[in-house]
Amino acid sequence: MWTYKVAVDWKKGKTGESRCAGKPTVEVATPPEFGGPENIWTPEDLLTSAVATCIMTSALFFLERSKITLKNYQSNAEATMEKGPTGLVITGITVAVTVEIEDPAQTEATQKAILQAEKTCPLSNSLNCPVTLEVQII
Amino acid sequence: MWTYKVAVDWKKGKTGESRCAGKPTVEVATPPEFGGPENIWTPEDLLTSAVATCIMTSALFFLERSKITLKNYQSNAEATMEKGPTGLVITGITVAVTVEIEDPAQTEATQKAILQAEKTCPLSNSLNCPVTLEVQII
Repeated sequence: MWTYKVAVDWKKGKTGESRCAGKPTVEVATPPEFGGPENIWTPEDLLTSAVATCIMTSALFFLERSKITLKNYQSNAEATMEKGPTGLVITGITVAVTVEIEDPAQTEATQKAILQAEKTCPLSNSLNCPVTLEVQII
Repeated sequence: MWTYKVAVDWKKGKTGESRCAGKPTVEVATPPEFGGPENIWTPEDLLTSAVATCIMTSALFFLERSKITLKNYQSNAEATMEKGPTGLVITGITVAVTVEIEDPAQTEATQKAILQAEKTCPLSNSLNCPVTLEVQII
């Protein structure tokens, strides 16, 4: 079993600070659409980032295992939130990944590695909304 | 419906960058226990932060609605990850909240507001693992 510890403290208004030992502090806030300020990470941003990062770190693992040399990896993630019968819920997260590899002969193996990354990503597996992955390989 | 967009790009080794328009870039990486470097935010840290931040921002909403004046709000969150039959999964997140208020007569109302925050937090509602809240009011 692994554990992950984070502190979140209120500062003023609708803002706070999120701290994780030894790591840079991240300022956090209520989203602007719910009365928070602009340009500060919100819980929804952090969740979206967590899922996209998990897919990237899992992909790095599977690409390395398949001996695929990566030239570039970019991803854009979008989460949607809607009002459900019990309140607001995240209804889906889409992650669009663009991967550039050195050897075109490894295109199929790369596709496989990225799809496996999404399947085994512990964060995708812990959400009750669908995580959709789109992969483009160059 | 609301949407939240984030980009996650690979930089080198097991590290990358997470960007959200107009917000500070957050460096991200594979956790050390899976071959990543120390002192960089991991997907598991970001998820834990997202949940604790969501509870805080929801609490701020309910405290304000109940006209409770906050003096201090601190929280410590811990997520556990374990190997399940389908791979790694987050098995639980515990958030311990300590709230300091001005008026002791509002202790019960504060407790209610924080519990309601966890119940309606869209992130708690989107996870398939239990989120446990511990509240201490001073």
